[in-house]
Order: sequence, then C-alpha cells, then structure tokens
Amino acid sequence: MGVVRRNVNRTDLEIVDGLAALGVATVHEAQGRKGLLAAYMRPIQQGTRIAGTALTCEVSPGDNWMIHVAVEQSKPGDILVVSPSSPCEDGYFGDLLATSLIAHGVRGLIMDAGVRDTADLRDMGFPVWTKAVFAQGTIKETVGNVQMPIVCAGAYVNAGDVIVADDDGVVVVKREEAAEVLKKGRAREANEGDKRARLAAGELGLDIYNMRGKLAERGLVYLDDPAD
Amino acid sequence: MGVVRRNVNRTDLEIVDGLAALGVATVHEAQGRKGLLAAYMRPIQQGTRIAGTALTCEVSPGDNWMIHVAVEQSKPGDILVVSPSSPCEDGYFGDLLATSLIAHGVRGLIMDAGVRDTADLRDMGFPVWTKAVFAQGTIKETVGNVQMPIVCAGAYVNAGDVIVADDDGVVVVKREEAAEVLKKGRAREANEGDKRARLAAGELGLDIYNMRGKLAERGLVYLDDPAD
Amino acid sequence: MGVVRRNVNRTDLEIVDGLAALGVATVHEAQGRKGLLAAYMRPIQQGTRIAGTALTCEVSPGDNWMIHVAVEQSKPGDILVVSPSSPCEDGYFGDLLATSLIAHGVRGLIMDAGVRDTADLRDMGFPVWTKAVFAQGTIKETVGNVQMPIVCAGAYVNAGDVIVADDDGVVVVKREEAAEVLKKGRAREANEGDKRARLAAGELGLDIYNMRGKLAERGLVYLDDPAD
Amino acid sequence: MGVVRRNVNRTDLEIVDGLAALGVATVHEAQGRKGLLAAYMRPIQQGTRIAGTALTCEVSPGDNWMIHVAVEQSKPGDILVVSPSSPCEDGYFGDLLATSLIAHGVRGLIMDAGVRDTADLRDMGFPVWTKAVFAQGTIKETVGNVQMPIVCAGAYVNAGDVIVADDDGVVVVKREEAAEVLKKGRAREANEGDKRARLAAGELGLDIYNMRGKLAERGLVYLDDPAD
Amino acid sequence: MGVVRRNVNRTDLEIVDGLAALGVATVHEAQGRKGLLAAYMRPIQQGTRIAGTALTCEVSPGDNWMIHVAVEQSKPGDILVVSPSSPCEDGYFGDLLATSLIAHGVRGLIMDAGVRDTADLRDMGFPVWTKAVFAQGTIKETVGNVQMPIVCAGAYVNAGDVIVADDDGVVVVKREEAAEVLKKGRAREANEGDKRARLAAGELGLDIYNMRGKLAERGLVYLDDPAD
Amino acid sequence: MGVVRRNVNRTDLEIVDGLAALGVATVHEAQGRKGLLAAYMRPIQQGTRIAGTALTCEVSPGDNWMIHVAVEQSKPGDILVVSPSSPCEDGYFGDLLATSLIAHGVRGLIMDAGVRDTADLRDMGFPVWTKAVFAQGTIKETVGNVQMPIVCAGAYVNAGDVIVADDDGVVVVKREEAAEVLKKGRAREANEGDKRARLAAGELGLDIYNMRGKLAERGLVYLDDPAD
Repeated sequence: MGVVRRNVNRTDLEIVDGLAALGVATVHEAQGRKGLLAAYMRPIQQGTRIAGTALTCEVSPGDNWMIHVAVEQSKPGDILVVSPSSPCEDGYFGDLLATSLIAHGVRGLIMDAGVRDTADLRDMGFPVWTKAVFAQGTIKETVGNVQMPIVCAGAYVNAGDVIVADDDGVVVVKREEAAEVLKKGRAREANEGDKRARLAAGELGLDIYNMRGKLAERGLVYLDDPAD
Repeated sequence: MGVVRRNVNRTDLEIVDGLAALGVATVHEAQGRKGLLAAYMRPIQQGTRIAGTALTCEVSPGDNWMIHVAVEQSKPGDILVVSPSSPCEDGYFGDLLATSLIAHGVRGLIMDAGVRDTADLRDMGFPVWTKAVFAQGTIKETVGNVQMPIVCAGAYVNAGDVIVADDDGVVVVKREEAAEVLKKGRAREANEGDKRARLAAGELGLDIYNMRGKLAERGLVYLDDPAD
Repeated sequence: MGVVRRNVNRTDLEIVDGLAALGVATVHEAQGRKGLLAAYMRPIQQGTRIAGTALTCEVSPGDNWMIHVAVEQSKPGDILVVSPSSPCEDGYFGDLLATSLIAHGVRGLIMDAGVRDTADLRDMGFPVWTKAVFAQGTIKETVGNVQMPIVCAGAYVNAGDVIVADDDGVVVVKREEAAEVLKKGRAREANEGDKRARLAAGELGLDIYNMRGKLAERGLVYLDDPAD
Repeated sequence: MGVVRRNVNRTDLEIVDGLAALGVATVHEAQGRKGLLAAYMRPIQQGTRIAGTALTCEVSPGDNWMIHVAVEQSKPGDILVVSPSSPCEDGYFGDLLATSLIAHGVRGLIMDAGVRDTADLRDMGFPVWTKAVFAQGTIKETVGNVQMPIVCAGAYVNAGDVIVADDDGVVVVKREEAAEVLKKGRAREANEGDKRARLAAGELGLDIYNMRGKLAERGLVYLDDPAD
Repeated sequence: MGVVRRNVNRTDLEIVDGLAALGVATVHEAQGRKGLLAAYMRPIQQGTRIAGTALTCEVSPGDNWMIHVAVEQSKPGDILVVSPSSPCEDGYFGDLLATSLIAHGVRGLIMDAGVRDTADLRDMGFPVWTKAVFAQGTIKETVGNVQMPIVCAGAYVNAGDVIVADDDGVVVVKREEAAEVLKKGRAREANEGDKRARLAAGELGLDIYNMRGKLAERGLVYLDDPAD
Repeated sequence: MGVVRRNVNRTDLEIVDGLAALGVATVHEAQGRKGLLAAYMRPIQQGTRIAGTALTCEVSPGDNWMIHVAVEQSKPGDILVVSPSSPCEDGYFGDLLATSLIAHGVRGLIMDAGVRDTADLRDMGFPVWTKAVFAQGTIKETVGNVQMPIVCAGAYVNAGDVIVADDDGVVVVKREEAAEVLKKGRAREANEGDKRARLAAGELGLDIYNMRGKLAERGLVYLDDPAD
C-alpha cells in the first residue's frame, strides 16, 4: 500500500536559487497569489531564507518510518516536505534525521506535524518550518508514500516543485511554472525599489498609486472631527 | 460607505511617553484591569516597548486599501491600529507600508490580522504586534473607515486613545483617562520597589501582604505529609 | 476547602540534575514515551534546559492567591508547577513572584495558564514554560491546593516528581521511577553517538536499522518515474 | 469598582419585534454589514429566533455574582448579554438563573463564556447563545458592571441596544439606528421575494444581476475542457 | 509494554445510578467543583444522561487495537473511557465496536479523540461523548494499557471510578468518594427546589441569598442613568 | 486571472449513487483511507447522506462572486464544493443561492468557509457541510476559478470527482477510481454483516480477528488487580 517514486524530475537549481533570493511574499505575489502553505507553519529559527526542490513524504499519524525511506531518494538541493495522512503533532523529526539529511545535501524541512531536538537543529544550522514543536515519539510500523503528490498544510505539492521558505512562511511553485515566476518576481522587485524611495521621502501611496478618484467613486467621504 | 475623520484629538505625547515607561502590565493594573487586547496579539520582535496615539483603521477581509488612506491621516507619535470587519489572517502589511509610516513618524503597528515581510520589518526597526504572520496578499477594492471607533482584538479603541505595547501584549487607555492612569501607574511602580527588595531578601508574600488570617478564614488547612 | 501538604518527599537532586543533562526528548523516550505535557506549553526564552522537583499548585480561574502560599513550601531545586481548576489564560505570574521564588532557590515555572512581565523574567534569568503570555491581572479571593496531585497540561504530576523542560517542551518523571529513567536515558544517549557518526558519513537509516525487509513485507513498492 | 446604571433607555419594543421578524442575516445586511458577534457564538437550541433590548453585564473570570445584580435591572423584553473581563468558558449560568429571568420577562441570554443545565434550559424554552457548554461552577466574590458598555464576542454593545439572535448567530443594532435599520431591512426583504421566484424558475444570477460584463472586464475567461 | 489489569474493583452500581439521576452539574458541585472533563467533550446525541463505572483504555495515535482488548475486560454497568497517548482526532470507534460493547452491557463511550458511524450509533441508542467526529480509519499495530489510570480530556480517571455524562459534558467521581458525593448531591438538589419556587415567583437572588451588603462592601455603586 | 472550465467530465451517476449508499466511513476505508476532508467540516442538518459530482469553485476571501458563475456550470447530480484562496469564515452562501442550485438539480454544498440562513436551508431540504455558520456578508469584486482543481479542507478535489457526505463528514473519490472503490466498498459491507452478528452475540473481536497471539508478541501482559 506504500509507493516510492524514484528519479523524479526536479526544477533546475539555478531557478530555485533565484526564487530564494526573492523570498516568500514576492514569489507568492509573482505567481498570482497562490501556493502558500497555511499560516500555522512557523520557522523554529529566525532570519533564514531557503529554497529547494520538494522531496515529498506522506506518513501515518504517529509513525515516522517513511522519513527514513525518503532520505534514500534525496538529492542535493532538496527540501523534505512531510505530511501526515491525518492531523498529528507528534515529534516526527529530530537531530539524527537532520544529521542524515545534511549528509545528503538536503537544505531543510517542511513538517505539517511536530519536530523535536529544536535546540540541536538550530545549532546544526538545519532550518525547519513546522506546525508544532513536541517531543512525543513516533513508531515505525506503517508504510506510506514518497515522492507522490501530497497536500501539505493546505497546499498541493508535487515532487520536484520548488519550495521557498523564510520568516513569513512557506510557498510552493509548480516545476513547470518556476522559470516564469522567477521572471515575474524579479520584475516585481525592480519595480518596488522606486516606490520604496518615494514612500521613504514621505510621498503618499494615495498619490503614487493614483487612488483618490477610485476611492471617492466607491463612496469614501471625509469628515472634519467635531470638537469634543 | 467609508468614512475618514480628520484632525482627531490625540492624547498629549508627554503623557503617552510616560505610559510607555510603565509598560503594559502596570498600565493595565493602574486603570483597573481593563483595556487589554486579546492574548493572541503577539510581537514579531522581542524586547521592544512603545506607546503612541491610536490611528484607527477598519479594513475589509483580504483588502488593505484603507491602510493607504490611513497613512495620510497619521501624525508623528501615532500607532496604526488595524482591524478587519470580519476575521481574516491575510498579510495586510509589509515593508513598503512600513517605509511610508516611518516617513510620517508613526511608531508601530497593531494588526488584528496578518503581516508579512517580517524579517525586513525587524531590520527596519518598525515594531509590530499581530494576530498572524502570513504572506497571503490582499486586494484594493473596498472602502472602510479611518479614525472611527473600532473593536480590535476584543478591545474598544477610539482614535487618539493611547496604545501601549511590549512583550506582554497590547493595552489601550482612553484619552480622557490617560493622565490619571499615568499618575496611578507611577504610584504603583514606586510602591513595588520596596516589595521587590523584601521579596528578594527572602521575606514571604504571605507576611508582607498579611494573608495568613484571610487564608485560614477561607478554609485553608495544612497537612503534614505522611511518610511514603 | 484548600489543602497544603508540607514536607513532601522530593526526588534526589543528583538524579534530577542527571535528567536535566539528557533533555526532554531523551527522557521522554527513556521512560517509554509517557509524561509529556501538551505541545501548547512553550518557553518564553530560547536555549534553556532545566530540571527540578515539582512544587505543585492548583489555583482558581483568575486567582493567583495560592502561588503566594506555594512559595513558603518551596525548597531549593524545586520547579513551581501551576494549574488552574478550569482553563484560564490570565497573567498569574510576574516579576515580583519570580523575585520571591529566586530568593528561595526555585529553578523555574511551568504555568498551564498565562504569565506577564516576560521581558523582566528573561532579564532576571528565571525560566518559564507557559500556555500564554497575557497581562490580564488576577485576584486573591479563593483558596486552592499546594503539593497535592494535579493534572497540568494533560499530564498527571505529583509533588516531588521530576520536571525536565527545554526548547522542546516539558516532561514529568515519577519520583519512584526517576533513577531507572536516568539509567535508561544515559544508555540511550551513548547508543545514539555511534549512529550519529554513521548517519553523518552518509550511511542510510534504512541500512543501519535494517529496515528494508520489513518495509517490503508491509507492502512498500518502488516505481521508476515515467518521463514527463 | 463596580457600577450599575439604572433606568437605562431602551429601544422601543415595536421596533425590536420588527427586527426579530427579519432575522440576523437580513438585519446585518440592512445596517451595512456591521454588528455581528463572533462566529463562535452558537445557539443551544435549533429553530429559535428572538430579539430584545440588551441588558449588559460584565463579570470577572469564574465569577457570576453580577448576573444576580443584573436580574434586578431587567425589564420585560430584555435579553441578558454577559461578557467576562478576560476570556473564560466556565458555566456562569444554569436553570435557577433562567427561572429568575423568565419571571422578569427576559427573553434569552447571550453568553460570551459558558452555560450549563442545557437540557433544562431547552425544556424551559429559555433560548441561549453561548461560546461554550461547560458545567464548571463559578464563585461570587468580585463586583463588575451592569448596563455599562461592553465588548461581547468582538462586538460593542450598549445597554438598550437591540439584540437579534437566531440559528445564524447574533447581531447588535444601536438604539439610535434601530428604526432606520428596520425600514431598510423590510425593503431588502421585499426585494428578495422577486429574485427568489426568478432563481427558483432556473434563471441565472449572472443574468438577473447583470454580471457578465464586469466579470469579463475583471479578467474571467472560459475554457472548453480538453478531452481526457 | 502494554498492561491489562483484570478484576478491577468498581463503584457499586446503586451509587452509580443515584449519581446519574443528579446529572453532571450537580455532581460536579457536590464534590467541590472538581473532576470535569474538558469542555471540548461533546455528546453526539441530545437529551441523554448516563452514569457508569470507568473502563479505562489508553491507545496510541491512530491505533484502536486496545479497544478490542478492553471489551473483554468490560462488565455490565461500565462506560468505556478512551484516551490517546498523544492528541489525535482519528475515528477510533464505530458501529461494530458499539455492537460488541452493547452485547456486554457497556452503557456508553467517552472518547478523547474521534468517532465515526455517528448516525448508526444514534440509531442503536449507544450514547457517546467525544472530542471529534471524523471518519479517519485507524490501524492495529501498537499495544497500550487497559484499566490503568489515565488522563482523559484533562481529568485523571481510575478504573472503577464513576463517570456521569449528559448534555453539559462529563464528570468523573473517585470510587472512594462516590457515596459521599451522592449524599451531598441529593442534599443540594433538595435545597434547590425551594429556591426555584421563590425565583419563579419573581423574588430576587439578591434578596434570597442576602447579597446586598457584601456587594456594597466590595464597592458596588448604583448610578441613575443621565438622560441621553 | 479567473478561469472557468466548461463541459467537465463527471463520474457516472450510477456509480455516484452506489457510493452514497455506502456512506463516508465505508467509502474512505474502501479506497485505502484517503480522501477525507478535515474534521472541522460539519453538517448543518442531522441524518442526511448524499453523494454527487464535484462542481469546484475557488473564491477570494469575503467575496462570493464566483458562486454565481459556478451555478451556470452545474448539472443535475452535482455537489458544489467551495474553497477560499485564503482562510475565511464569512457567510458566502444563503437561501437565494440554494434556491438557484436546487433549480438546477444540484444536490448539496461543501463549504470550506461560512454559510448563513441555516434555518431556511434546513427547511428547504438543501444539505450543507461547512466550516462555520456566520452571517457575515460578502462582496462581488474579484474573479476566481470554476471547475479547476482545488484544495478543500485539506483534500485535493478535481471537478467531476465524487463527493460523499453524511453525519461523519465528507470524502472525495477520484473519478478514475470510483468504480473500483464502489466494488471494494460493497465487498467490505457484505463482510461486515457476518461480524456484526457475531459481535452482537457477545463473541469477542479478540477471537473473531484472532488477535491474541500478535498482542502477546508485541508485549501485552495481564495483571490481576491487587486488592485495594
């Protein structure tokens, strides 16, 4: 009942690294405001931004066996993406698995469940985004799937898609759209530089974006405050 | 259907700054244990304490248009207080809006929804208390209200009221009560210094506050533990 | 209606300190995956690991009176464990109570409710694990129990049991099992060192733990990805 | 520290009863989509719709003393609206208090906390909307406020305002706006009858509301599904 | 690693049935406001009140194997009380297990996780209180404990204790305290009858309980509402 | 930016109706324990079981415009499945839309957000499963997608897939697997009849499923309870 897909096609790492430089919010905007994982996915560290290719892993509740299976399928540049088949916050992942993944060039972990050994993970420099921090141990009894499509924290992830993660959360970009999203994201970023300078000089967004007419048309009125 | 009140009366900044020095817990106690925003309002930074005058802004779910309108109404010393008309955790606010608010002397943001670009906001030194960190983008289609009374995270906030925020959360002080609260808060703080010294010397609160009689009267009994 | 047990038997501090060195995840595993407090118990600081003997305190909702009673029962090496008789997130605990506990050698606080003055608590070096940070004040009207058994964040805690707490959460070890758990935990840790080295060298868990046979037997199959 | 306002002005009961006939969703729309209490306020019965004048009551966490004070201030046509000064789900209210309120002509209860004796309350025909059902008992030690403005489940409620409640939830209408809201709500309802008939006959909302042009303008495109 | 205790002592069923007649709220009050399970434990049916002796069962997350073990230990008059070793909302229990329990005289189920086949369970008249309704299936791989003490929904339950459950929730009464609690509960109920009659006649709780003096002493003041 | 796919292939209604007869729990088991929507999806009615073909609709937060677009794409036998592009609990759907869908033969609604007019919907016999009941109104400003794949309450749904919903929740079956799942589900159901009879006669699952050996092997031990 468990399936492992081998030799999955991955997004080119040059594109992946370009998306990392843009960050989650910009990538999300550039691809039409889709692909975000749920807001409950939080980093265990602060100030880290990574991107990588999704190594997908579906596990049973309270059972981390398939993560060991996933390690063998990893390639440098991957990010491990784990989702339980029903909601669970157990501590599926700790410093030993991180040691193993680092040895295979995996860049980080996206866990729609729980992790532990978080102090060690921070010390090792292995970045993690997770639903929960919980020391509850897991068993190794049930097989699941590796490199099959999964729903992780409300987002649909295919093996080989791009994962971008930073302090704002996590976003997935489809492999076939990644090059286009990178182009749009860079254009967006270039455009923002000019606006930032004007806003920093005190100019109003109302004027820069020419909003006053549409606001009035939609019914915005101004009142002078009565003395009180 | 949207209203912007202009030239709102604000609490005097000298009082505001006095309240900042006291912090959230002391101010909350000094005004009779009222005015706290819900416990889910958390800072995105650590170790920052600010106070300012409330610049209120009611937005639609998933629509941050009115924040641009609010910037124009801001004055140095304000804190922007944003509340959606129905619950929403989208990322209403990022580094561009922060750049604009800093340029106008606004001291921070209280967001009963979501923010993004949190790493940038920390780098810029713009303090934020928020319900969620979420990169989900917003639109600009619906008008709302600026400087009208709002309910933010369960507390009623009038434009020009005082907002105090630190690692413990956020509290609002009514403009007309602010001077009195400052006086009471300072008295409270002075009184605590002596107690702190006695407690640090090992004296018991039971004795300092003379609690033993009332405890016995309310039925407290002491048992010597049986050997086990 | 309130009871205070005096002179409770406590776990030997040498055992306690040994357990602190192992940390929450290892202790939890060593005692057969039991005793964890709920995942919502989070530290207000990062990178701190402590252990101590449980000083238990049951309080009423919104009433912190019994914490003052508990201080008198404290001994050096204790950790204060507070649980409300019905769920509550008020700020039961702040810098004055911490000052008092430090003066009596108490090592930290486990609060299944809320705390405040968190910036001060961090500055004082008094470690806290809590359900909530909330400045809401409490009253002193109702008696409760000190050193009686309590359920704290879903775990059953007896006075004198061992509490271990770090970035991963909080675990309780029964006094009568503590010596045995320490022995098992040390054995476990010794065993992990060798595995860590092999994993760091790139060896797979699949091989180290000899999992391939059982995986196949439970139905795991490998597919080569079709070209796409 | 507790205040009871006597002889509060109430909305005329003829208007109140008119609003009851419209129901929560229509009243909410008629007053410009404001005034809803949070979605967590659920009825303990099904199929009941009431309206009344708000009898406001602020209680301490775990303390229902002020509800007894509120009963004395009640008038026929009132709905009791209770809000704790910090979040609490204790069982503030049961069949004895309901017996008392019924004797004074109070029409129901809106409780931003917990109730108990729910089977009895249903048998007595006393309607309740509440955050929680929980048998946890409360004490009588702390004074609060009656007929002062409160924030209940995220909405600001003044004594004498109109409360409308049904299976969809609870909405508050300001006393000074109630007559106008009633007029608008009735107009809205009249207008819906025609639309309902056309929709029931199979006509599309796209055509009735003339939406196709604006949809195309905002970028909606139609694709014929490829064979699969 | 799993333990089954056989031939556990149970509370006398005459006492159990006496407690059923009182209901959850009264029993909870009669034993000093303790023993309630968390408010999230809700009945899947309405209007049912039962009591029985606790048949305790600790299961692993996503694994219902031990429930089959528990059935063999059941006796007529028991209520099955199930708690997972870490939080889980899977559907541990459905119509087949209910069929089996009914055959052995078990009176109902208290599940700190999820159940399914709820329509069938209602049709069969097998009452259930649960944290969740969820069809997610479970496996049978890991042993746990039967008739050992457990923490269920925040309450400590020993095998043979009394469970009382109705529309208000669930309460546990220790076996050794059950007779005394029954006596106190009956006294409490007798006392309430008189009060109910006086309240129904319109008399105020303020007068019946003689509260006015203490309210004034604690600072309650009355204001006549200014004209507005 | 919005796309509507027309003429989507749907699962044969004979298969759909066969799956309805099995119910959610059996269908979920028959397809290998996958496809369940999150446990927070609850029916607004009790005792109803339906199945239909998914008519998918992605909406913006607080904006129900696309539901009107979806109606035109509906065919008899469809179930409307709505998911917001970011989490939202507004009342997207009420009696007018239900009137329109009924006119086009749509069998029910699966809403990963909020609905209103719930009393009317029950009266009309239009079944709904929803995340929330909330009267909050929505706007019509932003286009989205109809009949494109969506993630709804954590499950991936393609247009034309089968939706089965009853008191236990909601499950999706892929169109290409539906016939096979129906076959397996019927076999499963036939097999359960015999077991039900044996369990009703008092036979133990331990014996019927032959569990004793595996339990002992996994370490289950039996203790006779010490007298107490």
